[in-house]
Amino acid sequence: MKTIVKKFGGSSVANVDCIQKVAEKVALAHKAGERIVVVLSAMGGETDRLLDLARSVEDHPRGRELDVLLSTGEQVTISLMCMALEALGVSAISYTGAQIKILTDSAYNKARIIDIDKKRLNESLEAGKVAVVAGFQGVDSENQITTLGRGGSDTTAVALAAVLEADECQIFTDVNGVYTTDPRIVPEARRLPEVTYEEMLEMASLGAKVLQIRAVEFASKYDVRLRVLSSFEEGTGTLITTEENIMEQAVISGVTLNRDEAQVMVVGVPDRPGVAGAILGPVADANIEVDMIVQNSAADGATDFTFTVNREDFDITLKILREVAEGLSARDVRGDRNIVKISIVGVGMRSHAGIASRMFRALSAENINILMISTSEIKISIVVDQKYSELGLRTLHSEFELAQPNLTEV
Amino acid sequence: MKTIVKKFGGSSVANVDCIQKVAEKVALAHKAGERIVVVLSAMGGETDRLLDLARSVEDHPRGRELDVLLSTGEQVTISLMCMALEALGVSAISYTGAQIKILTDSAYNKARIIDIDKKRLNESLEAGKVAVVAGFQGVDSENQITTLGRGGSDTTAVALAAVLEADECQIFTDVNGVYTTDPRIVPEARRLPEVTYEEMLEMASLGAKVLQIRAVEFASKYDVRLRVLSSFEEGTGTLITTEENIMEQAVISGVTLNRDEAQVMVVGVPDRPGVAGAILGPVADANIEVDMIVQNSAADGATDFTFTVNREDFDITLKILREVAEGLSARDVRGDRNIVKISIVGVGMRSHAGIASRMFRALSAENINILMISTSEIKISIVVDQKYSELGLRTLHSEFELAQPNLTEV
Repeated sequence: MKTIVKKFGGSSVANVDCIQKVAEKVALAHKAGERIVVVLSAMGGETDRLLDLARSVEDHPRGRELDVLLSTGEQVTISLMCMALEALGVSAISYTGAQIKILTDSAYNKARIIDIDKKRLNESLEAGKVAVVAGFQGVDSENQITTLGRGGSDTTAVALAAVLEADECQIFTDVNGVYTTDPRIVPEARRLPEVTYEEMLEMASLGAKVLQIRAVEFASKYDVRLRVLSSFEEGTGTLITTEENIMEQAVISGVTLNRDEAQVMVVGVPDRPGVAGAILGPVADANIEVDMIVQNSAADGATDFTFTVNREDFDITLKILREVAEGLSARDVRGDRNIVKISIVGVGMRSHAGIASRMFRALSAENINILMISTSEIKISIVVDQKYSELGLRTLHSEFELAQPNLTEV
Repeated sequence: MKTIVKKFGGSSVANVDCIQKVAEKVALAHKAGERIVVVLSAMGGETDRLLDLARSVEDHPRGRELDVLLSTGEQVTISLMCMALEALGVSAISYTGAQIKILTDSAYNKARIIDIDKKRLNESLEAGKVAVVAGFQGVDSENQITTLGRGGSDTTAVALAAVLEADECQIFTDVNGVYTTDPRIVPEARRLPEVTYEEMLEMASLGAKVLQIRAVEFASKYDVRLRVLSSFEEGTGTLITTEENIMEQAVISGVTLNRDEAQVMVVGVPDRPGVAGAILGPVADANIEVDMIVQNSAADGATDFTFTVNREDFDITLKILREVAEGLSARDVRGDRNIVKISIVGVGMRSHAGIASRMFRALSAENINILMISTSEIKISIVVDQKYSELGLRTLHSEFELAQPNLTEV
């Protein structure tokens, strides 16, 4: 008998109709003999409603009481789901984070899961019940209510699958799987039947907002078979697993586009030790996250230091850099918010030289000028002018033949 | 340093503005040096909203999952209240029923409190914090969430006052105390500065919907000083306490009116043992609650059996009685839904004979015909035609001089 954890997000339980549809889906799987743990988010919009309530009481709600407030969202969904399942004749029982002791650290609003007591869950499953667990929430060692931060329900699902040694953790979303690239831009984009944890991590952090990064890390660490599926249509979705479990591995799995970044540059910086720290220190102090960083080696004793930040941090970053530049006697500070980052991702590129040059050649053939390059073991990212977003994505998708299933074999 | 439990109901925390007003009230008392436990209901309308959600999933929501759902209502209020208090510079901490182990039996939707762990509360109070506790909810010995039924927050407050040995339990409502009668009908009605538990119990069950009966019973059992106050205006309200603590005790404390009952009568019943049971058995089997019961002794071997039920049970009761009457060869079944019950209540009547006759004489002087009479140790109830409601109430209020403070002394 298979044990399956099924997680449904806010849009899948947006209203009572949706909840009843999910209940029917779960009832079918239960009838088919699965041991099922359902993990739920709050009803779509509910978390924002609660946040608005909190904001009308204090300007920047946070800390312990915010978690007491927000955790009610999932508690509502789990009880309604159990009622809907019972109405379909399926025996079900709900559990809050506190009730099955989803033990976390005490970092309110962004807690991390430490352990889960599986005793009650296993008892419920043994009794043939569907266990319906509130995602996103836990308790610390003092029994204080904590939440895991936005998207934390994915992490709850994976953690439950890990402790229960479930056969699979299924994340139901509003897309039917992970695609080679954004199908709205490249109609030939293909659903990937399988992808590795590492690839998924790179894709998630690069803008394919299907899964929480933390959940994928967790799944990778505890070897949980993770599957992304659609709540609304049938299909096998995308399985996320270890490299060894994937039969035919393409060199490149996907091409991603990130429109959320802006580029800043300190021009003519003296090429001496400590300069990078002098530039990035004040930026980090202002809590600005930096993504790509490029520094060219200098010919004339001066160098250009370039990096990307979130677009919404663009203005403040420029302001900070102008102050820094003065202290460093740099020649100039420049910035460009009209850039995008395009990346190709694939574990196969580890064993294939020449992927980068193939990528650059293809872009050059389309006269796309590359502004920045950054590489990791399984990813190559470039920054280009935003006007090349669609052309760049299509060019690379076609160059690496991603529309055809696994033609480029390892 | 006084320890005070302050309970605010749904209309006192109906929205964020109300919550902030309550927070200001609590902050003042905190500044004045009280050790304060605040008990809150769900925001006005929230429990109904949750019930509607549940009803859209199943026809008659009840049991375990309903309590998981409903208990979120108070959890929202306690977190918002703590945020509002913190915004005023008052240190506060919220507790759900589970967190301070408000231990109840396992009767979902109508659980009874067994015990409360006061350790965490006392620690919070010692640290100078306001403890804000979710009313209406608890957990059973298996850590299942339970609720106490409508109005259960009053009971939570009294139970907390009992275990903490608080100096007073203050119930803040939308009225400023307990009145000698309904001020909308008798403008001379006077707020009672003090009333005994027993009187309050009789008045609560007779239609003065200020306090939950269970809360008053609880307060009486554990000798908790209970005070009813207005959330919206200043004042000392009404203190509910033991007879010994009341300085000047009036013979009659109040006159109440109940418009929710209807009268039914089985006429010409054979006067032999077992008849009352034969009549009331089928009524009880149909879960119909019976209030006043009167049977006259018979002169001619036949008697009339009269009782009152809730008006909404009138039709079904008549239907049941017609079947019963046939079996008993009774002469007739009659009913009247246009009746009201008027009662006078007062511990002082125990030691005063003649109260009943004074009551009947006053009514007779106004030509008010009495249809039924029922008495207890501290209460006399009569049933009259509904058209005499206001006149009856005013007549008795005036007869026992209730508008004047304690003129009729014991």
